[in-house]
Amino acid sequence: MSRTVYFVSGSPFAWRVMLALGLKGLDYQAKRLVFDEGDTQKPEYLALNPRGKVPTLVDGEVTVYESLAILAFLDRAYPDVPLLGETPADAALVWRRALEIDNYLASALTGAARPIFTQTFAGKEAEINENFAKVRAEIENTAGWLDGNDFMAGSAPTAVDVSLYPPLAMLRRVGPQLAGVPGIEANLPDFETDLPELAAWMKRVEALPGFDAAYPPHWREAA
Amino acid sequence: MSRTVYFVSGSPFAWRVMLALGLKGLDYQAKRLVFDEGDTQKPEYLALNPRGKVPTLVDGEVTVYESLAILAFLDRAYPDVPLLGETPADAALVWRRALEIDNYLASALTGAARPIFTQTFAGKEAEINENFAKVRAEIENTAGWLDGNDFMAGSAPTAVDVSLYPPLAMLRRVGPQLAGVPGIEANLPDFETDLPELAAWMKRVEALPGFDAAYPPHWREAA
Repeated sequence: MSRTVYFVSGSPFAWRVMLALGLKGLDYQAKRLVFDEGDTQKPEYLALNPRGKVPTLVDGEVTVYESLAILAFLDRAYPDVPLLGETPADAALVWRRALEIDNYLASALTGAARPIFTQTFAGKEAEINENFAKVRAEIENTAGWLDGNDFMAGSAPTAVDVSLYPPLAMLRRVGPQLAGVPGIEANLPDFETDLPELAAWMKRVEALPGFDAAYPPHWREAA
Repeated sequence: MSRTVYFVSGSPFAWRVMLALGLKGLDYQAKRLVFDEGDTQKPEYLALNPRGKVPTLVDGEVTVYESLAILAFLDRAYPDVPLLGETPADAALVWRRALEIDNYLASALTGAARPIFTQTFAGKEAEINENFAKVRAEIENTAGWLDGNDFMAGSAPTAVDVSLYPPLAMLRRVGPQLAGVPGIEANLPDFETDLPELAAWMKRVEALPGFDAAYPPHWREAA
């Protein structure tokens, strides 16, 4: 049976799905789409995902998009390595934190970063800086989730880990670049010195099965 | 075992949880919080939900917030009436649509309605009208989900139905009020005449078990 993930390099939502597939030991073909070439708006892609966003998973007869829906599908179809909790109480914790990542951290990150990357931030500095303040608060909050465990919801990786790593890796990467943008005060933490527990957790995620295959190719190319 | 839902009257996110509990035939105590009295920011509530949002479910030993996380927990703890799909393919469809409601419809609705209800819309009319255009597009999209079925993901109600009904009921209620706001062009549909299939679906939801118990008390009081 064929299994394909459509992704854009660096999209945190696509990245989480690829990390999840890797953790579950599932083979997949990763089909890279390029925004600037309009790939996500081409008819053949819109036929799979009318929203023109990434990721989309095609797994045999099933086509699914919205990244948390993909994780929900994978956990039902391939329950051997559960990523959404083994017990109902675990499921409550994992889903709550995964949704908090999207509803608070990712939304603030998008509000902060998109105008900068698209060079449309003039006049919006105050709003962007407010979003960076939210991003910083959310990062500190997630550091507390470890609570002495190896992973974000206990001793094994879950949907929380695969959902949190990509936006944090992106922030770690762009932080130094943002320092020079006039009017922008991102004040992002240096993970190694300011949040060593989070930095150690990132190293643990980087050692998980399937991590390398999911790594954004354009980051590798730029390295 | 005690089961309590903390809600604010009319909150679509709390409402969906109460509808889900009703569909599953689970008894619950509904504890009403009032924004204007600061109930959601009181220490005793923040101890349950540090975000100070509704809903929060306390079910025996488990406390969970983020409404879709509550639905995920309920479906794991009480699987008899599944609301998140019976098969992996069903789960993919239900989760995808439930997340689309939050990521597109609810976010546009919040962007449109909040500045109006808080009387802070002066100067933001263009942005608000853009959000209403998105709301209209999302409503039409959801009408297509029925596809000849009684409910939004097949012949039985699911998380899609309980998540979609509250924002649509809210729009149906406020539409006529918005018509008179200067500078605002909501152009919301009249469900009965413009989207009769959606109006018929709403009637079916209104006939489901537990519907009355979940109905926003301040709407009843105003009626």
